[in-house]
Amino acid sequence: MDCQESLSTDRPFGSKERELPEFSQTLQGAMAPVAMELDSSMEQRTELAFSVLNTPDPPAPWKEFASSVKGKVFPGGKKRPSSLLHGLVSALHGLFPVLMWGRNYDLKSFQSDIVAGLTIASLGVPQSIGYANLAKLDPQYGLYTNLVPPIIYAVMGTSREIAIGPVAVVSLLLSSMVQKVIDPSTDPTAYKKIIFTVTFFAGVFQASFGILRLGFLVDFLSHAAVVGFMGGAAIVIGLQQLKGLLGLSHFTNKTDMVSVINAVWVGLHQTWHPANFFLGCSFLIFILVTRLVGRRKMKLFWVAAIAPLLSVIASTLIVFLTKGDKHGLKTIQYVKGGLNPSSAKLLQFTGPFSAESAKIGVVCAVIALTEAVAVGRSFASARGYQLDGNKEMVAIGFMNVVGSLSSCYVATGSFSRTAVNFMAGCKSPVSNVVMAITVFFTLEFLTRLLYYTPTAILASIILSALPGLIDVGEACTIWKVDKMDFLACLGAFFGVLFGSVEIGLMVAVVISFARIMLSTIRPRIESMGRIQGTDSFCSARQYPIAAKMPGLAIIHIGTSFLCFMNANFIRERITQYVLHDDKQDKEYDEEKPLFVIIDMSNVMNIDSSGMAALGEIHNKLGSLGIQVTIANPGWQVIHKMKLAKLVEIIGSSRIFLTVADAVGACLSQIEDNRHV
Amino acid sequence: MDCQESLSTDRPFGSKERELPEFSQTLQGAMAPVAMELDSSMEQRTELAFSVLNTPDPPAPWKEFASSVKGKVFPGGKKRPSSLLHGLVSALHGLFPVLMWGRNYDLKSFQSDIVAGLTIASLGVPQSIGYANLAKLDPQYGLYTNLVPPIIYAVMGTSREIAIGPVAVVSLLLSSMVQKVIDPSTDPTAYKKIIFTVTFFAGVFQASFGILRLGFLVDFLSHAAVVGFMGGAAIVIGLQQLKGLLGLSHFTNKTDMVSVINAVWVGLHQTWHPANFFLGCSFLIFILVTRLVGRRKMKLFWVAAIAPLLSVIASTLIVFLTKGDKHGLKTIQYVKGGLNPSSAKLLQFTGPFSAESAKIGVVCAVIALTEAVAVGRSFASARGYQLDGNKEMVAIGFMNVVGSLSSCYVATGSFSRTAVNFMAGCKSPVSNVVMAITVFFTLEFLTRLLYYTPTAILASIILSALPGLIDVGEACTIWKVDKMDFLACLGAFFGVLFGSVEIGLMVAVVISFARIMLSTIRPRIESMGRIQGTDSFCSARQYPIAAKMPGLAIIHIGTSFLCFMNANFIRERITQYVLHDDKQDKEYDEEKPLFVIIDMSNVMNIDSSGMAALGEIHNKLGSLGIQVTIANPGWQVIHKMKLAKLVEIIGSSRIFLTVADAVGACLSQIEDNRHV
Repeated sequence: MDCQESLSTDRPFGSKERELPEFSQTLQGAMAPVAMELDSSMEQRTELAFSVLNTPDPPAPWKEFASSVKGKVFPGGKKRPSSLLHGLVSALHGLFPVLMWGRNYDLKSFQSDIVAGLTIASLGVPQSIGYANLAKLDPQYGLYTNLVPPIIYAVMGTSREIAIGPVAVVSLLLSSMVQKVIDPSTDPTAYKKIIFTVTFFAGVFQASFGILRLGFLVDFLSHAAVVGFMGGAAIVIGLQQLKGLLGLSHFTNKTDMVSVINAVWVGLHQTWHPANFFLGCSFLIFILVTRLVGRRKMKLFWVAAIAPLLSVIASTLIVFLTKGDKHGLKTIQYVKGGLNPSSAKLLQFTGPFSAESAKIGVVCAVIALTEAVAVGRSFASARGYQLDGNKEMVAIGFMNVVGSLSSCYVATGSFSRTAVNFMAGCKSPVSNVVMAITVFFTLEFLTRLLYYTPTAILASIILSALPGLIDVGEACTIWKVDKMDFLACLGAFFGVLFGSVEIGLMVAVVISFARIMLSTIRPRIESMGRIQGTDSFCSARQYPIAAKMPGLAIIHIGTSFLCFMNANFIRERITQYVLHDDKQDKEYDEEKPLFVIIDMSNVMNIDSSGMAALGEIHNKLGSLGIQVTIANPGWQVIHKMKLAKLVEIIGSSRIFLTVADAVGACLSQIEDNRHV
Repeated sequence: MDCQESLSTDRPFGSKERELPEFSQTLQGAMAPVAMELDSSMEQRTELAFSVLNTPDPPAPWKEFASSVKGKVFPGGKKRPSSLLHGLVSALHGLFPVLMWGRNYDLKSFQSDIVAGLTIASLGVPQSIGYANLAKLDPQYGLYTNLVPPIIYAVMGTSREIAIGPVAVVSLLLSSMVQKVIDPSTDPTAYKKIIFTVTFFAGVFQASFGILRLGFLVDFLSHAAVVGFMGGAAIVIGLQQLKGLLGLSHFTNKTDMVSVINAVWVGLHQTWHPANFFLGCSFLIFILVTRLVGRRKMKLFWVAAIAPLLSVIASTLIVFLTKGDKHGLKTIQYVKGGLNPSSAKLLQFTGPFSAESAKIGVVCAVIALTEAVAVGRSFASARGYQLDGNKEMVAIGFMNVVGSLSSCYVATGSFSRTAVNFMAGCKSPVSNVVMAITVFFTLEFLTRLLYYTPTAILASIILSALPGLIDVGEACTIWKVDKMDFLACLGAFFGVLFGSVEIGLMVAVVISFARIMLSTIRPRIESMGRIQGTDSFCSARQYPIAAKMPGLAIIHIGTSFLCFMNANFIRERITQYVLHDDKQDKEYDEEKPLFVIIDMSNVMNIDSSGMAALGEIHNKLGSLGIQVTIANPGWQVIHKMKLAKLVEIIGSSRIFLTVADAVGACLSQIEDNRHV
């Protein structure tokens, strides 16, 4: 079926006329007024039709890739630096933002930052000791992680509110994944080595993501999946605290709910000392009450902030004075004082566990980045500025690399401490430096005071931080708005709760990906109708006012990639619909349409299977006397159709810019044939 | 920014007017004529705008799922059966199509089928012995596989041309995957057990795919990937034949090119007998020459079809008469005669390898189905009828299940034999039955004749079948039309060639999936312009005749799922484009637009991240005095925007049915503000 490429102005279709069957009176009656009003724009339509097929070729994929890489190297189209020195200075400013905001730093900001720094230190010191316990490390490692990474971040990061240090979820993730490689109770030194190696890998990956502008990798977890994952992780962390709260000696290493409840049950039937439980619970209630007070009266937020520190001091005194440690109260006991020792020699890049360490490093890198970027962005937008996500990743990556060399484990932005930082009026990352200095003093002079601190207090401090991680309101909103999103949320939640942290993550990722694949595998194929009196065509199901046109079937393909995954499905659906094989769908009389207009406005790209499907539709329907026309093919689509000679098979006079043009041409052909 | 839901007919926007900055003469000049012609349709636009927000709610996901399941159970909307007996008869007819076509079967068709059956038997007997060797099984298993499955298929299948039996690629796939579990040379009995178990699993999976109408799973390999995979597999199979052709005793089990060439090199330096090579090569040349003759003169196709059988007979005679087996020619030697023994007791569902068997079963199921469905469909469309893919899958699944119980391994449709069947004039699946009967006679009476058949002949028969698998022309077409598809083709090809069959498959699947994910992760964000004198808006890059409108930025989002994967990217791109942060893109003067129209015609679905991104765009641009409007949101999109209260945030008067409506409203607002 060869159609000439050049189009006459009178007949948009080729010169070969099909013999049209007799059609009903209804059809003629409907066609008359519409056909006449469209005659006048025939010339214009022909011009437009011509331009559909004669657009410039789209850029080749490798050219687009090259320009996107160029856009990453010189982002925002900034001018190239005028000289090498200028370039170096720009690069330094980019890498160390402190050089920029440091110039405008005044005494007033410094005062605010001191107050904020001390406040987050009072919360951070007890929390970090507790989180180190969660990561199955000795308490001082939590303090180390609250010392070095914040300082590195202050120099390289751009968020003014974020508070850096160890966080609950990452500590749990680390311990849960690394203990599968090495058991910390049997070989703590080897365990530590792996932890530091994982931290190094995590830092390297994070910095690479930032440098290569692979920020979208952090987007691989949908918001709903993160909500479910965090909620499940919070409950798992809470259950783990039952060991400290009840003062149990033996506990399970597994994190899933069933194993933990079993371990608690077994532990309760052995020796446990109620004193731990009462002490922990009372201070937990105290901390929660102060938090409630702080929420009711915003000015008293500092009460909630220092409550954990007060609890530590008070409980240490209680234990010291009552000699509680002799009566069954479990205490932290010896905490090694002094600054971070170097851990460079402990890093293990060879050996049987290096691949496993890299793998755990990637997972921790992504989770830590997700949390830091989410925290940083929400507070930045509250303060009205935008964070550069890639710069943040580089800063966080470097801080973890340096931390891994100085006995720290994976640190990131903590939501609870950042909120406190914000409300305490921080003005810049200097608040992190102040906090780090406070931790330094603690490490140098105050560690011996922690000898008598009960572990139950650490458990209650961690427990008090967990309600912030469980966002039931957000889960309800997700349920209301998007049930599929809620499925991802639930999947991640139960995966963490009853499987493990990794299983929860994997479920979250798989459901998120599956949703995207599903929208490609099963696209919507809908029939369209005309909005009376206009040239607008819409889905007949969505807009009941859209009227279908007798003799024409206008079908909309609702996917942006017509490919091997959906080509067969689309071909079968279109053929079934047009030939009324699906007899349940009898919307009008049994006549087959004379023309089928395939609206490809959505289709941005097509592959060989997609083109084969279009060709088969054309052949199948053509053999039954039905003409197929194509409306509004995308740039890549028309280009490939030309290359694959599909344009010649379908006919260049049957490809239109808009559905309205296609409808007009079909109707005028019906008119012409009626007159013939 | 609360806008009333009810719209006045005069002002499409809410009553709160923004203070507009002074705009240039150019803007006023351009706006005047267009603004006036649009006034008259204002009332209509308002009505349409109203209808955008008041469409009926889309069906809930579970309802759509339920109706699709119903569609699968009662496909094509066929009427429910009137009585139980009628239903049973329909079901039987569906399961055993022979009951339908068998009624119209006449003597003439039987004659054609006998000829065709004998022709494919002459090709199939030597091929199946060779393929059994490829699958590292004794020769009789190839004959068994050519006996039982074709009979089962003839009763249950719908393709009239397909020739069932063992095929090269599946034989290679099986041996390559199963030998990693058990080495056939050390423990052939255990190897056979796994082969039969895998065949059973493959059959079960294939039947399940058909029954559950999961036909799309076969679509998981793009056409380009299959072309690359088949080409690579053909070369690997060819290299493996060098063992038989050169008469080598020791060979490698690995399939990758480097290992095979290494083994050949080592073998050539040890004892090998040139007689094998000369014999094999001469008959290979003979077979290829007859095939050329058959292609030149279509009537002589039967010469090419019986050439392998002639070669087997001739070479057997040569070896027998010259006592070649004493002089170094390797022969098949003992072939166990007699019908298929039962292998039901050899199936292993428990034990250490059951999971592995199931996994290999799935892979073989999909590959075998892909081949069978492709072969069946291409010949069916050549003859003008449509295959029911799901019925074919059920038939093929059952035949493999029954085959696994009768010492057969995975069988599927062979392209070469189907082509011969077609050209020999087959009329129905009875040709397969005739072939099976011929194989039966061979097994009962003729196996002792194979004692002297040289293995080099089998190698040359297999080698002669390989050029059909390497489709260079198709690869060139893929290169011309779609470079990314070609990448998938190359990836699969080299994966098979230098890695292994599984690696090649995995590369093919990963590249295919990655392409789909990429189109979601990095959608096109393009600016649109108006085609002069019309209400059509198109991409300015694709259609250079589309003119941009000063004061308006019309941005098109080119993805069908605005989700967590692309929300941040889209938000950044739109913001950068509107605020001219990307200064390389200065297409007009530096003024920021007054209105931004986001064309969401492509967006079929949105999740919470997507809605958050839209809200952030609205807030960010709104804070700079730029109004954001939305045009043509999809059904699910507007529904979720309503649920998430995004409609209220953006303003219900700023959501339009078409881009033209949005443009008209913005322009008239500019006009009104000019007059104020």
